[in-house]
Amino acid sequence: MTTPVLTIKGEPLDRAQLESLLRRRMFYTPSFELYGGVAGLFDYGPPGCALQNNVIDIWRKHFILHEDMLEVDCTVLTPHEVLKTSGHVDKFADWMCKDPKNGEILRADHFVEDVLEARLRGDKEARGQAVEDKDDDPKRKRKKAKGHEAVRLDDAVVKEYEEVLAQIDNYNGEQLGELIKKYDLRNPATGAQPSPPVSFNLMFQTSIGPSSNTPGYLRPETAQGQFLNFAKLLEFNTGQMPFASASIGRSYRNEIAPRGGLLRVREFLMAEIEHYVDPESHKKHARFHEVEHVELDLLDRHTQLSGKTTTQRLSIGEAVRRGMVDNETLGYFLARVHLFLLRIGVDPKKIRFRQHMANEMAHYACDCWDAELFTSSGWIECVGCADRSAYDLTVHAKKTGTPLIVRQRLDEPLVIEEWAVEIERKKFGPFFKKDGRAVEAAILAASQEDLGRLAKELEETGKATFNVPGVGDGKVEVGKDLLSIQWQKRTVNVREYTPNVIEPSFGIGRILYSLIEHNYWTRASEGGDEARGVLSFPPAVAPTKVLIVPLSSHKDFGPAVRELSRKLRAAHLAARVDDSSASIGKRYSRNDELGTPFGITVDFQTLKDGTLTLRERDTMRQVRADENKIIQAVRDLVDGTKTWKDIEAELPAFEGQEVDVPVREKEEAN
Amino acid sequence: MTTPVLTIKGEPLDRAQLESLLRRRMFYTPSFELYGGVAGLFDYGPPGCALQNNVIDIWRKHFILHEDMLEVDCTVLTPHEVLKTSGHVDKFADWMCKDPKNGEILRADHFVEDVLEARLRGDKEARGQAVEDKDDDPKRKRKKAKGHEAVRLDDAVVKEYEEVLAQIDNYNGEQLGELIKKYDLRNPATGAQPSPPVSFNLMFQTSIGPSSNTPGYLRPETAQGQFLNFAKLLEFNTGQMPFASASIGRSYRNEIAPRGGLLRVREFLMAEIEHYVDPESHKKHARFHEVEHVELDLLDRHTQLSGKTTTQRLSIGEAVRRGMVDNETLGYFLARVHLFLLRIGVDPKKIRFRQHMANEMAHYACDCWDAELFTSSGWIECVGCADRSAYDLTVHAKKTGTPLIVRQRLDEPLVIEEWAVEIERKKFGPFFKKDGRAVEAAILAASQEDLGRLAKELEETGKATFNVPGVGDGKVEVGKDLLSIQWQKRTVNVREYTPNVIEPSFGIGRILYSLIEHNYWTRASEGGDEARGVLSFPPAVAPTKVLIVPLSSHKDFGPAVRELSRKLRAAHLAARVDDSSASIGKRYSRNDELGTPFGITVDFQTLKDGTLTLRERDTMRQVRADENKIIQAVRDLVDGTKTWKDIEAELPAFEGQEVDVPVREKEEAN
Repeated sequence: MTTPVLTIKGEPLDRAQLESLLRRRMFYTPSFELYGGVAGLFDYGPPGCALQNNVIDIWRKHFILHEDMLEVDCTVLTPHEVLKTSGHVDKFADWMCKDPKNGEILRADHFVEDVLEARLRGDKEARGQAVEDKDDDPKRKRKKAKGHEAVRLDDAVVKEYEEVLAQIDNYNGEQLGELIKKYDLRNPATGAQPSPPVSFNLMFQTSIGPSSNTPGYLRPETAQGQFLNFAKLLEFNTGQMPFASASIGRSYRNEIAPRGGLLRVREFLMAEIEHYVDPESHKKHARFHEVEHVELDLLDRHTQLSGKTTTQRLSIGEAVRRGMVDNETLGYFLARVHLFLLRIGVDPKKIRFRQHMANEMAHYACDCWDAELFTSSGWIECVGCADRSAYDLTVHAKKTGTPLIVRQRLDEPLVIEEWAVEIERKKFGPFFKKDGRAVEAAILAASQEDLGRLAKELEETGKATFNVPGVGDGKVEVGKDLLSIQWQKRTVNVREYTPNVIEPSFGIGRILYSLIEHNYWTRASEGGDEARGVLSFPPAVAPTKVLIVPLSSHKDFGPAVRELSRKLRAAHLAARVDDSSASIGKRYSRNDELGTPFGITVDFQTLKDGTLTLRERDTMRQVRADENKIIQAVRDLVDGTKTWKDIEAELPAFEGQEVDVPVREKEEAN
Repeated sequence: MTTPVLTIKGEPLDRAQLESLLRRRMFYTPSFELYGGVAGLFDYGPPGCALQNNVIDIWRKHFILHEDMLEVDCTVLTPHEVLKTSGHVDKFADWMCKDPKNGEILRADHFVEDVLEARLRGDKEARGQAVEDKDDDPKRKRKKAKGHEAVRLDDAVVKEYEEVLAQIDNYNGEQLGELIKKYDLRNPATGAQPSPPVSFNLMFQTSIGPSSNTPGYLRPETAQGQFLNFAKLLEFNTGQMPFASASIGRSYRNEIAPRGGLLRVREFLMAEIEHYVDPESHKKHARFHEVEHVELDLLDRHTQLSGKTTTQRLSIGEAVRRGMVDNETLGYFLARVHLFLLRIGVDPKKIRFRQHMANEMAHYACDCWDAELFTSSGWIECVGCADRSAYDLTVHAKKTGTPLIVRQRLDEPLVIEEWAVEIERKKFGPFFKKDGRAVEAAILAASQEDLGRLAKELEETGKATFNVPGVGDGKVEVGKDLLSIQWQKRTVNVREYTPNVIEPSFGIGRILYSLIEHNYWTRASEGGDEARGVLSFPPAVAPTKVLIVPLSSHKDFGPAVRELSRKLRAAHLAARVDDSSASIGKRYSRNDELGTPFGITVDFQTLKDGTLTLRERDTMRQVRADENKIIQAVRDLVDGTKTWKDIEAELPAFEGQEVDVPVREKEEAN
């Protein structure tokens, strides 16, 4: 569904017009379109690609460089065992149901949402209220048209539907099945009620190596690669805590029914941070004071459970003090995410932070806040900030028998009394052979309580029995020649703990799409031509920084254009020349659509005195100066050390040559 | 096999020592090591990741920015049909054979190579000649040890083996099978002769969507995504030729038996350029004159077929004039590749360009030159420069019925007489329904010769028969109510042609590994400590640019260190602080191994007058100046606008504080 949205200029955003611009200028395009396309796969064309590179570059500076994070680059191919341990094989799934008539596969939560929303629209229509429905995906339109009959509902039913929709992410498969039955929800395409929801794992499967004995998946997140490198990264960081690793790379989700363009895709770029903290530090953050004044719009769990979506504007300091946001580290990252979004040019009025409800959270999370951006598809989850606690490190350590812990030297030694295990290694390995590792892991995983019981068993029967799944019948007896369990007193100088993980996770494609919508407007907003779209990206983010426009395609301009081009390249400023025969106004207009913030005109005066005109995209105002000053101005504008106002104050305005007449065509017609 | 290699300082390179350094400093590490690892998969740790980012950044500037290439970012997931058309489903394969005794799967060409090399080593040993064998992969060592018996061979046999090895890439499966039988080659592990080679497709398979009706692969190259976007890119480029697209992304090859660390992996980063040229332009290049003086070491096809590997040093201008390199565009890119490799710090004495032999070329290539880098694993293919002719665009156009061509306005119109096809669209579509597209594609693909024959058939029988694989029995009759074929005269103002493609394709991982080897040496080369490794990366490529070293961990240094750190960050210079208690010498030594080119010492003098010491990694010489001058110096060094010599000429030398005593330990012992 498209949601009515206003542009930064306060006019209604025309999504169809924007999408036509994005296609025309090749920001992105459906992959394999020549072959009919594949749902949920998109390619980025040159401007989309440059936009992505620039956002990633700022992300690296804002997060990795700013906080000395340890960047790693891990493989996408991941063996089965790793994702079995992490819980993804069992739990990384959506609920899917099938239409018994036409075999169509539906994502259960989306299906419930679609049908209830259609009924609510029908109700509004029957009550004579305005209904917004500008969806231009023909497939979805057809379905909705059928489901969307003007039937008036009871007030109580409307309220019930609205409450269901407010917590749609909170239902499991069984509950979704109940909703389908209770409200008799039917597929508008066939009139049939779909089958009860079943779980569908969202990972792409493959097989590694020639003998197909290593089943694997395409990773669903970059996080697991980071966790598996935890011990090496801690050592690289010379043992110091807290620290963070970070990774930028593709991940994969085999979506049941992708929709919404870049917003729900099967292959996507993620940027993820895993910040490791001592759980006994109350997750304090040393730099929290730098951000505590940052104000956020927050939508907490309780508000949502009461069926509402009103946000509260609070400083992050206040939100943490009130306990709404659990701890400083989580709060620190929410604020840093907010600052990042502002820096790349997201509209501050279209950001909110929403807390996950209990059932909605991923299986590994103990708390989670999403940064959501408002678009014509509603509020879109773009950054998830999850507290994954010690979940991942614990399960991998347990499975592999490798400790994934921090050793902290204590100021005062502790004396501890406890059951201690000793394995007779010389005999143990040869005895258990290939099962040795699994048996040892089971022994080392035993709790103090278990060890008390096992010590008794060992003393009384000469052997202790361990549960080792996958070895023999799952029970393994270990004799006292291989193992001793003793009650021991020991002095501890080092505290060992498994760190907790706070994970800000960015969906770059969703951020890019939202960023584009937030920066789109048309010259009509200022009395100009309605068809002339502008993308007002900040200079640092814009795909190309400078358009070089010779006054005409006359060959005399060639050398000056090439020289300017060379100098901009040397200053690492992405520039493009447009020496086509189109009018200067048309050429600038083309580049407004590409979001190019600056234009430099080379004219006959340039050939005489070397001066150039610099034009700013949003205001269309111009200054004139010699080449070096103009290049330095662009450099300062792109670096963000100066604003256009600063440049206008420094360099003389240029009015001589009107390149753009902002007159609305309709007015001309009058 | 490890090959004896000298470092830049002329000493023998100790690969085991280098690999220990790379592990210790976490340049890269086997993926999923906690789970026992997966062959052919590696993760990059922080220094490896930064090195990769910097090389990619330079690549973007050197190729994309320098030549206004159109960067695109396409998906890795690729549907079956696309790779079937491109030929990869049928031909992208290696020859594999199986050991009948232990079931081991061997890559046939590597197996033949290994056994023959072992025999040649045995022969040398028997003749009392020195044998180099420092391989430290225990698995491979074991195998070789068995196969490596000191047996003297006939001189003629030695010559024959050497000739086979010189063209090992030139054999197909059948020929490899014949070699195995002819020379009775046996797996050293079992003494058995492996089964005849069979073809194994190297693509990872998966299934897209929930209903498993879209089989797909992980792309084996980024090229196909670029080709499929050709028409849109040409339009984006306002129809102008020649132009190039470029893409940086992961590709996948399910190697039979990965080996050699980063040199043969299953998941890897590629950077590929597809440069489109008019085939009738003789593939001239407008900027060839900029590079024609660049000298390359060339190893052409004929030299290799004669069993030799001696290179010829020629300017690329001369090589193209002689016809050794087919055309200017290919030559232009060979030279640009060479310049890129020098720019990132590859040793010029360890680069050669080798032409592919006929059987060795990929199925799509009509000529190919590899940039090979010399490492301890021998000459490694790092960049392939293939002339793919019009292969890919032609097969995709034919398969999808979409023209992938350039329309060039002619200065003078041409009059052409030819067979012209007209389809009666109103009837054609309804008649063939879903097969319409395939039938139409077959009709449009017919040659002039075919059309002549078909026109006759149509006239005589009222229908024409087309081969349409996949429709009915593959033969489709089209009646004259649906189709006319006429001999027509027409005036042509536009020439249509399918462009040819020159493709430079970079394996980033291989380049990184070679780069590391080429820049590795130890202080022993200069009379220092043998265990002290140095990685002399150029500043622009080095993972971290500056190490900040407070004289001690005394807290008084804190503010100055933090302030310096902040200023370097603002200048976008990656810096790290080492305030550990290790001696300054030790701390610098650690960073020599990380390849950090500059060190800044904060000492008591700094607290008094704000001056800092700047140390250069390779010479270990130092200068001293105030903070701003030092930061500006580092900036100039990293940008490449100044050399260390320039800085030494500008800023006063500092000798006061000897941080490093380059004395060989052995000498101390004397």
